[in-house]
Amino acid sequence: MMNKYIDDSFALHTDLYQINMAKAYWEDNIHTKKAVFDLYFRKLPFGNGYVIFAGLERIIDYLQTFYFSESDLEYLKELGYQEDYVDFLRTVRFTGTVRAMKEGEVVFGNEPILRIEAPLIEAQLIETALLNIVNYQTLIATKASRIKQVAGDQPVSEFGSRRAHEFDAALWGTRAAYIGGFSSTSNVRAGKRFGLPVSGTHAHSFVQAYQDEYTAFHKYAKSHKDCVFLVDTYDTLKSGVPTAIKVAKELGDNINFVGIRLDSGDLAYLSKEARKLLDQAGFVDTKIFASNDLDEYTIMSLNAQGAKIDAWGVGTKAITAYDQPALGAVYKLVSIEDDNGQMRDTIKISASPEKVTTPGLKKVYRIINNLTKKSEGDYIALANEQPEKESKLHMFHPVHTYIGNFVTNFTAKDLHEDIFDHGTLVYESPSVQEIQSYVGQQLGLLWDEYKRSLNPAEYPVDLSQACWDNKMKNIEEAKKHTRNAVPV
Amino acid sequence: MMNKYIDDSFALHTDLYQINMAKAYWEDNIHTKKAVFDLYFRKLPFGNGYVIFAGLERIIDYLQTFYFSESDLEYLKELGYQEDYVDFLRTVRFTGTVRAMKEGEVVFGNEPILRIEAPLIEAQLIETALLNIVNYQTLIATKASRIKQVAGDQPVSEFGSRRAHEFDAALWGTRAAYIGGFSSTSNVRAGKRFGLPVSGTHAHSFVQAYQDEYTAFHKYAKSHKDCVFLVDTYDTLKSGVPTAIKVAKELGDNINFVGIRLDSGDLAYLSKEARKLLDQAGFVDTKIFASNDLDEYTIMSLNAQGAKIDAWGVGTKAITAYDQPALGAVYKLVSIEDDNGQMRDTIKISASPEKVTTPGLKKVYRIINNLTKKSEGDYIALANEQPEKESKLHMFHPVHTYIGNFVTNFTAKDLHEDIFDHGTLVYESPSVQEIQSYVGQQLGLLWDEYKRSLNPAEYPVDLSQACWDNKMKNIEEAKKHTRNAVPV
Repeated sequence: MMNKYIDDSFALHTDLYQINMAKAYWEDNIHTKKAVFDLYFRKLPFGNGYVIFAGLERIIDYLQTFYFSESDLEYLKELGYQEDYVDFLRTVRFTGTVRAMKEGEVVFGNEPILRIEAPLIEAQLIETALLNIVNYQTLIATKASRIKQVAGDQPVSEFGSRRAHEFDAALWGTRAAYIGGFSSTSNVRAGKRFGLPVSGTHAHSFVQAYQDEYTAFHKYAKSHKDCVFLVDTYDTLKSGVPTAIKVAKELGDNINFVGIRLDSGDLAYLSKEARKLLDQAGFVDTKIFASNDLDEYTIMSLNAQGAKIDAWGVGTKAITAYDQPALGAVYKLVSIEDDNGQMRDTIKISASPEKVTTPGLKKVYRIINNLTKKSEGDYIALANEQPEKESKLHMFHPVHTYIGNFVTNFTAKDLHEDIFDHGTLVYESPSVQEIQSYVGQQLGLLWDEYKRSLNPAEYPVDLSQACWDNKMKNIEEAKKHTRNAVPV
Repeated sequence: MMNKYIDDSFALHTDLYQINMAKAYWEDNIHTKKAVFDLYFRKLPFGNGYVIFAGLERIIDYLQTFYFSESDLEYLKELGYQEDYVDFLRTVRFTGTVRAMKEGEVVFGNEPILRIEAPLIEAQLIETALLNIVNYQTLIATKASRIKQVAGDQPVSEFGSRRAHEFDAALWGTRAAYIGGFSSTSNVRAGKRFGLPVSGTHAHSFVQAYQDEYTAFHKYAKSHKDCVFLVDTYDTLKSGVPTAIKVAKELGDNINFVGIRLDSGDLAYLSKEARKLLDQAGFVDTKIFASNDLDEYTIMSLNAQGAKIDAWGVGTKAITAYDQPALGAVYKLVSIEDDNGQMRDTIKISASPEKVTTPGLKKVYRIINNLTKKSEGDYIALANEQPEKESKLHMFHPVHTYIGNFVTNFTAKDLHEDIFDHGTLVYESPSVQEIQSYVGQQLGLLWDEYKRSLNPAEYPVDLSQACWDNKMKNIEEAKKHTRNAVPV
């Protein structure tokens, strides 16, 4: 069955409860009230010290093309929604204002990555898709960055399409991996769509089709000047590497013997022995590529063992974020217009202090020390504050408030960009190469202690005094409210 | 940046090495040689005793629409592929023959789920997409089936869109979860596209928008006759449940007080206390729904604790297959046409016995005992064998051959259906409801020992004597070949 809905849209790519809440808002005529939602995560994945934000480009696409198609509306009628509500939904477009971090921004827990100001109904309907996009792409960019930190100058290629969670994950996941620091992808469609470098040579089946490596390598070389031979189909050291060398010698300058690829076995041992064979044969510039269920831990271990591997192919473990396949970003209402047209800040309290939301329209600043050029931490302020104009900032832990210090001689960099202004896109997306470079620059602002893969230090994300006071006031009011809620 | 390629196709949704191998085959003029590939996995995920196959419908779509679009071809030229090869690719369509298991089939390790007979170049180009589809959808159907086994008669809803790995995973993943036994989904687009039941009521933000639960529940009830109230925004037992009861009493027959939903806290304790409050108020038919990072382990534990939960919402853990987010299905060449037009079986040997491929064109049978109506195991035979006509079968372990027995009075059911015949679709896809029912029937053939979630017994997947002999012959030849491969 092909998709029978040729006008399929993404507006229904949402949870049913959004449609149900929207209906109640519309019937109660509060659907146009201005609402402010923050999108953020609480806990950093993989025990990492930072996160790389990805997904903004896809979000821009989604918001720009947000509409319910006729088949969407027909389906909602079939579900039992009344005609006038469905007719209203036909008119809904995204008319809100969005400020967001740039793709590739280095972000931390509890910082609003996106801040949505929009009519309540619009802000609510887009929640699911926004989280779906940010949770996945950000997770993969972060995982890739962890792997790249360990690989250092050795290039890493993304090879995970066959294990990705369906087509979109392969496509957007490899883009996120590139943002996080990977050098290329095997996915050709992603190469085309995003301008990513693509890489790949041949598989075991190619050797099987020709039955022996000697014939297969010759056939490949006849068709491709740049040759990376896969050498583990039968026996890497007894057959694969010597055959590759033999073919390369026979063909001389007719090919570039770029490398050999190891895809199984003891990569540390095999790479060292293969390196010796290549060097003895005079192929000192021929590289050794390795793949096979690699991640930051195996790469670190192989490098520590002195493996002679020049470049890495990483598949399953990166594209699925194997050791932690979900980021828990959330989307919380922090302010809403009241009946008098005034904004009322909102809070969601919880028995766990770290789950209490931070009310109000806010900005996020990176506080950069002008002497060291390193970041002192991030600083969340209310939107009407101007920390960039202060000469001294009190930075303190938002839960354990006794932990803090005063910072002077700093630059406060607003981490949010204007993306949409009342529904109009006002942001020009950078290329994916520019985004990757931006990641490098932003990581350069962090002390190494925040970047190590094991037990990194906790980067400070602090609230301004005004933001903290506002939160405490809201907590008190919510507690009062709960006390008064006893019914009957 | 919107997708600037309006003619974007999925033909480039492949690894670059497929394009490179295809080029070498085409230049060597062996690209039309008939090749046979098996798609299968070796290891069952989650320590489960069986796997539920999903993905066939998406594969049919993909193969039916396989073509390189003009922008695909233009991109390949930009990458440096020569004009005549690109012109050839323009003509490529899928013209092969596919036999495959039905969606919802219960499958085991090393069984060909799909068997592709096609011109070498076509069979090679489609590998990545086929694996991408099967690996994900099958993983999720299997995870969902595990969860459903534990939940028993209690319905399970899929709530994972916000944590899925991008849009396609949310869409196809929830379809797979339904196949595996879930009852409904929160994803409205999946409901529309696949005819799945959809479910959902309201979020915490709805209560926040109205500031107190009493107002929020009233507003929701005014807009929706069937009410499930989310009761944990402030305090489940002190505020949420009593307020829900109060509102339901006030509204009487104006609403159906279907249920309350618990989304945080100690679900065992809260559900028992909430049940008491509901029963005391006379709402004995009002159900308790629970969600919050659930999976088969937490559901089993909650049921063991006597939690009073009637239905489950499962998100992250199912849609991402959190505890093992990748299935390792592979796609292996098992036979190829030689220069004389004869089929030559191929093998990939390995130091690990379980990784050695099984050569030849094969069929898979389920051997059902006519007395018990239970399955004795699966039986892989060469395509020219007819085990359904035998009166006695020798079933033995394909690695540890001394383990085996003779089976009589059986029905041998061919598990493959004809899907494509030389490029023509000859299969009519069942509805997703039919697929879900089929899963139930097929699981009914298995003894309980194979279905328990912890340490299930190993289901026999045996080779026929002829299939085993052919494999041994191919191993011997491959070893001879490797010995003769010493170069220079």
